[in-house]
Amino acid sequence: MSSCPIDSKVIRPIRFIAGQCQMLDQRLLPSEEVWNTYTTYEEVAEAIRSMVVRGAPAIGVAAAIGVALGVRDIETESASEFFQQLEEICAVLAATRPTAVNLFWALERMKHFAESNLDRSVVELKIGLEYEALAITQEDEQINRKMGSNGAPLLPDGSRVLTHCNAGALATAAYGTALGVIRAAVESGKKIAVIADETRPFLQGARLTAWELQKDNIPVTLICDNMAGYLMSKGEIDCVIVGADRIAANGDVANKIGTYTVAVLAKEHQIPFYVAAPISTIDLSLADGSQIPIEERDGREITHIKDYQLAPSGINTCNPAFDVTPNRLVTAIITENGVVKGDYLTGLTQVVNKR
Amino acid sequence: MSSCPIDSKVIRPIRFIAGQCQMLDQRLLPSEEVWNTYTTYEEVAEAIRSMVVRGAPAIGVAAAIGVALGVRDIETESASEFFQQLEEICAVLAATRPTAVNLFWALERMKHFAESNLDRSVVELKIGLEYEALAITQEDEQINRKMGSNGAPLLPDGSRVLTHCNAGALATAAYGTALGVIRAAVESGKKIAVIADETRPFLQGARLTAWELQKDNIPVTLICDNMAGYLMSKGEIDCVIVGADRIAANGDVANKIGTYTVAVLAKEHQIPFYVAAPISTIDLSLADGSQIPIEERDGREITHIKDYQLAPSGINTCNPAFDVTPNRLVTAIITENGVVKGDYLTGLTQVVNKR
Repeated sequence: MSSCPIDSKVIRPIRFIAGQCQMLDQRLLPSEEVWNTYTTYEEVAEAIRSMVVRGAPAIGVAAAIGVALGVRDIETESASEFFQQLEEICAVLAATRPTAVNLFWALERMKHFAESNLDRSVVELKIGLEYEALAITQEDEQINRKMGSNGAPLLPDGSRVLTHCNAGALATAAYGTALGVIRAAVESGKKIAVIADETRPFLQGARLTAWELQKDNIPVTLICDNMAGYLMSKGEIDCVIVGADRIAANGDVANKIGTYTVAVLAKEHQIPFYVAAPISTIDLSLADGSQIPIEERDGREITHIKDYQLAPSGINTCNPAFDVTPNRLVTAIITENGVVKGDYLTGLTQVVNKR
Repeated sequence: MSSCPIDSKVIRPIRFIAGQCQMLDQRLLPSEEVWNTYTTYEEVAEAIRSMVVRGAPAIGVAAAIGVALGVRDIETESASEFFQQLEEICAVLAATRPTAVNLFWALERMKHFAESNLDRSVVELKIGLEYEALAITQEDEQINRKMGSNGAPLLPDGSRVLTHCNAGALATAAYGTALGVIRAAVESGKKIAVIADETRPFLQGARLTAWELQKDNIPVTLICDNMAGYLMSKGEIDCVIVGADRIAANGDVANKIGTYTVAVLAKEHQIPFYVAAPISTIDLSLADGSQIPIEERDGREITHIKDYQLAPSGINTCNPAFDVTPNRLVTAIITENGVVKGDYLTGLTQVVNKR
């Protein structure tokens, strides 16, 4: 892994270029814009685990590229042996983070491609998987733009929109999910002001959402997570839009810790609460959100900012990275295949199966 | 102002000793325990403004001591001129922070003492005001212990109690308000586990509540503010107890930003939400919470931790330091004169006027 600085107007945090994976190191934003280069699947797995890249769709894209990098080094002429080693690579990538289903979706898609082409030569499989990873990357941007145009009509002109965490370009291949809807509304000529929760402990709102909206000249006001309720009570928030890490068949939504609190507050103030996510985030195999695994991360994320210690040494912590918002608190789920409201079980099945 | 290290078992963050005011610099906790010494009222005012000392009752105590220091330097033999200069000192101290009413209560009490003794000599007035400041300090501890014994029966044995900000010994002369109730429950033999919101942006929970409970060997788990909803949804919080900066006649409660969100979450999960505050926090002159002034603090508190920058340069912020929880979300208000429930207008008037 080496670092090189690259500049660009459009924010694309993951690039699969010249046979290498380049990722903007999101841990260093907004102070530094450093691009890391990865050439092995183990390096990509570590980048996902350590949150160089984060956000459900971006994790899926990174994992697909990781597979493409990994299969290159498989030394065999046997397609079945190739597939077996491919599965081992996928297992390593799958073990990085448990909650975002896009990770498993992307790995399944890569495996499915190989499985459907086991009559080809190993070289052809390697090339094909590289194309597949590129396709997943490019499709993600198209999906987000589609989601944006589906969701933009839900945001009234002049509205003040609260978002939590970063469901933006940095959480995807480009454009973003929740922030994609905001971008599409702005591109359609609407005046939108964003209120961004800082999103402790990893500060994706302060570091990433603020950074990318500022870059796109979309007005943004940064608040601490505990201020959203106050602003709602003052009538200063018109709607909420967030991304998702996994959506169960019944419409229960796993997303960054704190999302559930925002949803409860939105209900209390009768403010619409929207979720924007690609269908790859929908997990129809889970009946409801209680079955979604919630990642527990290191308490150091809470007790320290970089090397600066915030809390007394030895203090006990609890650091769930996600929570589940029950479907009854979700006004609508915006996907690239349409907006689902009300009967989520039927609606989500329809958008997932839509061609 | 000079610094000197002092150690003690009982946490008393403000001392009026040898004619000087000593305060534990709460901005440096938990990394460093530094005591500052103040000899003028201007220094005390600056210490309140810059949050060396914070917490409604502690601000009141500090202001009273500030007055005692300030009147020393008044050079006159005329009681009426003395009183005029006393009022000027009080005006400087009153302008430090707008929300906590204990500040104004303490200044009024000091003024009232002087006003009632204008027949005395200026020297006697100076000595009397010093005694009055000492009395306010000592009474605060007694009040908190009384509040503790009134509130302790509300916390069931074995309960897991969420608190927000620091309403502990560090927010008072000693013992604490909300944490005083927890201390009293523990002293009565109950097993209590505390969950402490870190309380952004100033991190009073992470830095102060965690520190003082750890010192007292009361089990405490530190979480980010956005995690309380998740823990409540998992059934891991049994009740909430917080302090207050000002309580209106109808029972609306101004307290640290984020308190309102916790109250909404408590209601959603049918968890009792208790407020512990001395009657000096009750402002019967305000009909409801909409009239309580909410301090807006510098955005740098959000964008920086010490010198480390969290958010992009030039980002817009909103930093209200307090919010108002409407009375309908408050299960009970615990005071030194009794526990008020239900009809707050009647109940609060009764406890305030109780002798």
